[in-house]
Amino acid sequence: MRATVMYGAGDVRVEDVPDARLLAPTDALVRVTRSAICGSDLWPYKSMPHSDAGRRMGHEFIGVVDAVGTNVETVKTGDLVVSPFLWSDGSCVFCREGLQSECLHGGRYGSADVDGGQGEAVRVPQADGTLVVLPVGQDDALMPSLLTLTDVMGTGHHAALTAKVGRGKTVAVVGDGAVGLCGVIASKRLGAERIILLGSNPDRIALGQEFGATDVVRERGEEAVERVREMTEHGAHSVLECVGLAQAVETALALARPGGAVGRVGVPEHDSTPTGVAFWKNASIAGGPAPVRAYIEELLPDVLDGRIEPGRVFDRTGSIEDAPDGYQAMNNRDVLKFQIKP
Amino acid sequence: MRATVMYGAGDVRVEDVPDARLLAPTDALVRVTRSAICGSDLWPYKSMPHSDAGRRMGHEFIGVVDAVGTNVETVKTGDLVVSPFLWSDGSCVFCREGLQSECLHGGRYGSADVDGGQGEAVRVPQADGTLVVLPVGQDDALMPSLLTLTDVMGTGHHAALTAKVGRGKTVAVVGDGAVGLCGVIASKRLGAERIILLGSNPDRIALGQEFGATDVVRERGEEAVERVREMTEHGAHSVLECVGLAQAVETALALARPGGAVGRVGVPEHDSTPTGVAFWKNASIAGGPAPVRAYIEELLPDVLDGRIEPGRVFDRTGSIEDAPDGYQAMNNRDVLKFQIKP
Repeated sequence: MRATVMYGAGDVRVEDVPDARLLAPTDALVRVTRSAICGSDLWPYKSMPHSDAGRRMGHEFIGVVDAVGTNVETVKTGDLVVSPFLWSDGSCVFCREGLQSECLHGGRYGSADVDGGQGEAVRVPQADGTLVVLPVGQDDALMPSLLTLTDVMGTGHHAALTAKVGRGKTVAVVGDGAVGLCGVIASKRLGAERIILLGSNPDRIALGQEFGATDVVRERGEEAVERVREMTEHGAHSVLECVGLAQAVETALALARPGGAVGRVGVPEHDSTPTGVAFWKNASIAGGPAPVRAYIEELLPDVLDGRIEPGRVFDRTGSIEDAPDGYQAMNNRDVLKFQIKP
Repeated sequence: MRATVMYGAGDVRVEDVPDARLLAPTDALVRVTRSAICGSDLWPYKSMPHSDAGRRMGHEFIGVVDAVGTNVETVKTGDLVVSPFLWSDGSCVFCREGLQSECLHGGRYGSADVDGGQGEAVRVPQADGTLVVLPVGQDDALMPSLLTLTDVMGTGHHAALTAKVGRGKTVAVVGDGAVGLCGVIASKRLGAERIILLGSNPDRIALGQEFGATDVVRERGEEAVERVREMTEHGAHSVLECVGLAQAVETALALARPGGAVGRVGVPEHDSTPTGVAFWKNASIAGGPAPVRAYIEELLPDVLDGRIEPGRVFDRTGSIEDAPDGYQAMNNRDVLKFQIKP
């Protein structure tokens, strides 16, 4: 089958790889009908050292179940399913608490003998704990929005929850990528009164405003902090850090008002977080890999009813063969998010 | 009047200073009947560069009101009052939210023209917002426990709240100083099922066990983490960081289970906190200077009824003139906490 493989920074290829197949009785074999390139795929695209073996890519996908292992009970051949960006058993102590991203027996796609999502098919381990059946056809118009439930919409929701967004709150969103924009959607959905989006790209800002951003700050760093202070007097109740770079984290901490909360979901491309800023103003810091499996069930009705339209973050679609162009376009910031329709 | 002044590391003197007096119509003049040396006073005692002017010390005190400014309404001459370690106006947006430690018009004792608590008298700014009247006599047997409401008991309570301690939780307390031991009291009071105290001093451990610690870990650093992992399988739900040194923070982060919470109240003697450990396991970090003013009202009934006895952390008492010896004894860890009875 065809699949996307990264061999190093800037070097993504689409190649023939061994067909995905069932290995364990808890597996499902899923033929991918939609997948996507994630902002976090750009970190290795910028910096991965050359690897002769390469690394199978992709962790956001929807597909049709082609086969299931003998122990799989909740999905069956022919079902259209969506997968979180991590697989999880659904039964460990953390899964039962709704924190499936910390599953004791879970893992990542594109590792060892688990396929990546940017290919024709995927062996999904722990299918019962991982997959959610979608009640629509595979070419439904809602497909882009449903595809965001695999990662970016759930991750934006996690940022908002860990930043304690709620009714009447003032929220600042650091980052105008797909996760940041989904953070805007999530903040509005949770009742925020004011949503300040920090970003500089006009198209993304415009989309953010349609999603619910009430204010935009185009400055960066200290100037951005000053602007938000002017607008809010003491800072934001809730700050969503959706980038992961040291400067974004420092900005996020500075934006929080005393007693405020920072929710961080940007994959950390930095080693440490300043202590004093948050400590002296009693701001909390939370977040991490989003338990998207839990959030799919929470957010799915809103997507199906059209109350939220996170799929609008996709601004280009191509086939698997176009994936290398998709990486390049996203890395150049020509494209916000690339959808793959095999 | 006599008061304690620090001139540099290891150099604490008791001297004649100008008498405390009312300066603003919102002031109260409080004659100190009890005060204490705080663990945080030991940071400058270890490291303060020499200062010719010196620094007035002390922020934990109880006293009798000798005079009030014309605008003071809630306390009157003759009242026995307890002060939080910070003064606050009680009316700003943060005070109204119960976060008096972030008061917009508040401040510290021992700064500029505000006296320190380790002296004969203190000018208390914003008396209405700051002071709480105590319904007992000045030599009541409960005085040591009431004195802990100025700081260490409220700070231990803040650590427990920000670490999300609750019924049935497993808690780890990093630090066997007065704040850590009060964190044990607070954790038990909030319903923790298991309270693991990390410490090495036999007397402090014994007191911690009487306060409610169910387990003790005497190892430090990675060995301590391994011991707690063995005891808890995945780590503690709630971790109270009551030290402030980099190693203690790293230990605290390592002790938290996935999805757990670290409450940090140790005055930070470090610049940054590792990002990855907390991020990848979705642990939250919160805490800061405790809003003790709010907690006095919450904890006072438990002290008055004898349900908690935090005053047992005081293991030596002396006069103001003995304060230099008190600093030395606490710094040598010969004394856990020193009470001053002028």
